[in-house]
Amino acid sequence: MKRHFEQELESLKTTLIKMASVAEEAVRLSIKACLEHDLELAKRVIDNEDRMNVMEIEIDNAIIDLLALQQPVAIDLRLILAAQKINNDLERIGDHAVNIAESAMMFAERKESAPLLEIPRMSEIAELMLRDAIDSFIHQDPELSTEVLQKDDMIDQMNVRLVQEVVQKMKTDMKSVDWGIDIIRVSRNLERIADLATNIAEEVIFVLQARVVKHQADIKRTEHGGVSQGLP
Amino acid sequence: MKRHFEQELESLKTTLIKMASVAEEAVRLSIKACLEHDLELAKRVIDNEDRMNVMEIEIDNAIIDLLALQQPVAIDLRLILAAQKINNDLERIGDHAVNIAESAMMFAERKESAPLLEIPRMSEIAELMLRDAIDSFIHQDPELSTEVLQKDDMIDQMNVRLVQEVVQKMKTDMKSVDWGIDIIRVSRNLERIADLATNIAEEVIFVLQARVVKHQADIKRTEHGGVSQGLP
Repeated sequence: MKRHFEQELESLKTTLIKMASVAEEAVRLSIKACLEHDLELAKRVIDNEDRMNVMEIEIDNAIIDLLALQQPVAIDLRLILAAQKINNDLERIGDHAVNIAESAMMFAERKESAPLLEIPRMSEIAELMLRDAIDSFIHQDPELSTEVLQKDDMIDQMNVRLVQEVVQKMKTDMKSVDWGIDIIRVSRNLERIADLATNIAEEVIFVLQARVVKHQADIKRTEHGGVSQGLP
Repeated sequence: MKRHFEQELESLKTTLIKMASVAEEAVRLSIKACLEHDLELAKRVIDNEDRMNVMEIEIDNAIIDLLALQQPVAIDLRLILAAQKINNDLERIGDHAVNIAESAMMFAERKESAPLLEIPRMSEIAELMLRDAIDSFIHQDPELSTEVLQKDDMIDQMNVRLVQEVVQKMKTDMKSVDWGIDIIRVSRNLERIADLATNIAEEVIFVLQARVVKHQADIKRTEHGGVSQGLP
């Protein structure tokens, strides 16, 4: 029974890693489609969403079977509950990649040569965060998760700066309105992808440390200076 | 043991209902702050986010305890896993209300009297979807969940129309750029809130029908005309 459980758990992890690589690829290709005005590539990302939705359901079903048949406790239980959340986060990352691909189609259709400003750099950081979050899950590495958490503010600030810059441009050049709406959309979706990568990293830390670092600042505030929930 | 489990399950449901009412209230007040240019109200919504984050963690911890100590199976297991997802969906709805409140602050600070177009109507529908999704969970009512699912397209279409209308306005009146960026942001956040209400309704159906209606169209496509996963 025990050996069977470990096999099932390994199989769940493998499927989740596959799901993560599909999500990563969707983000990468959606940005590539923006940069290269590649209509076909954007359509491929949009069509690929179905595949991620099906994978999400398969993983959810595997999780229910695992919990019902094996009734795990302690670290195994936490790992499986975290897997359910990570699964959901990955599916949402796929949704955001689709939003970016839709804007890529708009760039391509309008044949705009307008610059993408900091978007390539933002996407590099968001993709790295996602990759590190997943790697920290695979290798059960809390230090790598913590690195992901630290990058989230950077993306938030880049997004705020980009929106300000684009709004200024839109105010002085009416022809930039269509471009501006889409580039802000891409930037906000990248920011959400980074948030979701941060969620995944928080889940990994939760599994490994058996405590919730999520919203630790809020907890500290609520506890009025009580026991710190922070990382060591 | 059994009676204790039922008490714990009831207590989990009650806490989740409380979380839902906080989320509902956040959405309602964030839109009210937009309509009435109420800076203080917008700030209250933003400050309230911490409370939702803490509630989310408390519910997650209750779920882990329930699974570890009681090892439920069948419908109880599905209910608890759905509760975990609904909890996460509600916390995200709170995040979107904060985004709307941030735009409300911008409207108030700029003292704009620009119209909010279809935003009040969209928010009414989104709030109704959220309320019905939660009611369908409380009363275990799959018909009410199905109604929520049917409203999602309506909000999507309203969002697309609003964005088109605002972009046209921005192209002819440079002074409308700041307003336009924020009203599009509010509209997209309402659309996401409606999506999350839809997710909750799907979770309820999943619990009640022991099958996943989520992304049913995708499954049908993947199965190449195989067994339908649709509702009766």
